[in-house]
Amino acid sequence: MEIVSKAKSHGGVQGVYRHASDATGTPMTFAVFVPPQVDSGPVPVLWYLSGLTCTHANVMEKGEYRAAAAQHGVIIVAPDTSPRGENVPDEPGNWQFGSGAGFYVDATQAPFSTNYNMYSYIVDELPALIASQFPADMKRQGIFGHSMGGHGALTIALKHPDRFKSCSAFAPIVNPSTADWSRPAFEKYLGKDETAWREYDAVSLIEDGRRFPEFLVDQGTADSFLTTGLRPELLAEACRKAQIPLRLNMREGYDHSYFFISSFMADHIDWHAARLK
Amino acid sequence: MEIVSKAKSHGGVQGVYRHASDATGTPMTFAVFVPPQVDSGPVPVLWYLSGLTCTHANVMEKGEYRAAAAQHGVIIVAPDTSPRGENVPDEPGNWQFGSGAGFYVDATQAPFSTNYNMYSYIVDELPALIASQFPADMKRQGIFGHSMGGHGALTIALKHPDRFKSCSAFAPIVNPSTADWSRPAFEKYLGKDETAWREYDAVSLIEDGRRFPEFLVDQGTADSFLTTGLRPELLAEACRKAQIPLRLNMREGYDHSYFFISSFMADHIDWHAARLK
Repeated sequence: MEIVSKAKSHGGVQGVYRHASDATGTPMTFAVFVPPQVDSGPVPVLWYLSGLTCTHANVMEKGEYRAAAAQHGVIIVAPDTSPRGENVPDEPGNWQFGSGAGFYVDATQAPFSTNYNMYSYIVDELPALIASQFPADMKRQGIFGHSMGGHGALTIALKHPDRFKSCSAFAPIVNPSTADWSRPAFEKYLGKDETAWREYDAVSLIEDGRRFPEFLVDQGTADSFLTTGLRPELLAEACRKAQIPLRLNMREGYDHSYFFISSFMADHIDWHAARLK
Repeated sequence: MEIVSKAKSHGGVQGVYRHASDATGTPMTFAVFVPPQVDSGPVPVLWYLSGLTCTHANVMEKGEYRAAAAQHGVIIVAPDTSPRGENVPDEPGNWQFGSGAGFYVDATQAPFSTNYNMYSYIVDELPALIASQFPADMKRQGIFGHSMGGHGALTIALKHPDRFKSCSAFAPIVNPSTADWSRPAFEKYLGKDETAWREYDAVSLIEDGRRFPEFLVDQGTADSFLTTGLRPELLAEACRKAQIPLRLNMREGYDHSYFFISSFMADHIDWHAARLK
């Protein structure tokens, strides 16, 4: 693991790191904020998964998470959203597929299956690296994210309820199998058989019996993707039927940007911290 | 004035605006955060001047000022740092002069004097626009900034003690007349006669009799520009001799970046808000 940069911030250290990933076959860059409380021992880890077009840097620069993370003493890990590089198959100009759009799946279809294995990267490879390189208490992990990263957080939590003590999302894609902006990506990564897509779809996973103790979701009412790609009411309905407590905060006038995310970042970290104590 | 973008954030509105500037002869872009308290009437205005290479966007994205501004009910104005455009003389590749490096002076030397009039822009033109277009209480103004923008804040406050009730800075250039990284710019903007430079130099202004009630300065000890370009001890010495109270916080391990600025942004806004009540 190579240190790209380190800077003191809010009493802790915001670092950027790079390593050669087996899962993606590429160098992968990620950001880690380590709070000052590590001086007294390992601290909980909160995973933040970013949305379409993002790298590790967007939330690191615009997410305003460090004050709350330093207050509560949690490590924040912000991975990249896809493999990148000259040898990685991509569709330049298509922001909903390929580079910046890994959708947190393990692709099964050539030529994408060689590199686009963000599910294994986030679930297996990067946690092992974090556990070995940072003062992280891996028995206390939470996960959250935005948009495509909200989808990632919900699906990964539903498939790993024993690992994560908390899960929340900002404006998540809750049912990518049926949304026009994600169906083409799912088909290219996972093939035409839509039954395979259900493993990477929060609503489908709940319908298929997966459970998580509770979810927190914040969603802006002025989000231009609200009624087409995001549709939180589908998650609400699935949670209602499955009796999963969902706190869904519809935020009047907020859009899909980091101006929205940062407004409720402290609320989410408070919520996770209470469950990671 | 044209609206470039508006987004709800932290209960207020973060906007970006553009207008044709008389002072610079160019279109100028600036950011304004309006807090929710404007529903009850005009609120104080806090000017944030950015450093070398920045536009209005850097602090808007990375400065983490909205939570505190919304808490205290202050408007934050973040102007650009120079004129820009194809017809503006510049030295591409030189980050210490020209585009992104207006130094908050009115240039007197051709060909720069046509456009590089950031002092008049910040002191006269933009305040008139803010007063006419935003719910701003112009009787309650404060000013702060970072690096070159800290220099701007200190010098403008010293020359307008009746207008500004508060002034602070992050890692300011306190004595640009004698720093290697600013002397070439001062010579090109203001000419070889260094007596003309004193009007744009905080230490010189204090030596020449200008006064301000008090200053707050935060400075990182790991700032790579600390001992060459910034040298807060020169401001401390000038303030001591002039009996201007200076609270100079040397922050162990912090660098020159927004990771540093954002760490102490809330402290500075608290400090301004107490003086703008």
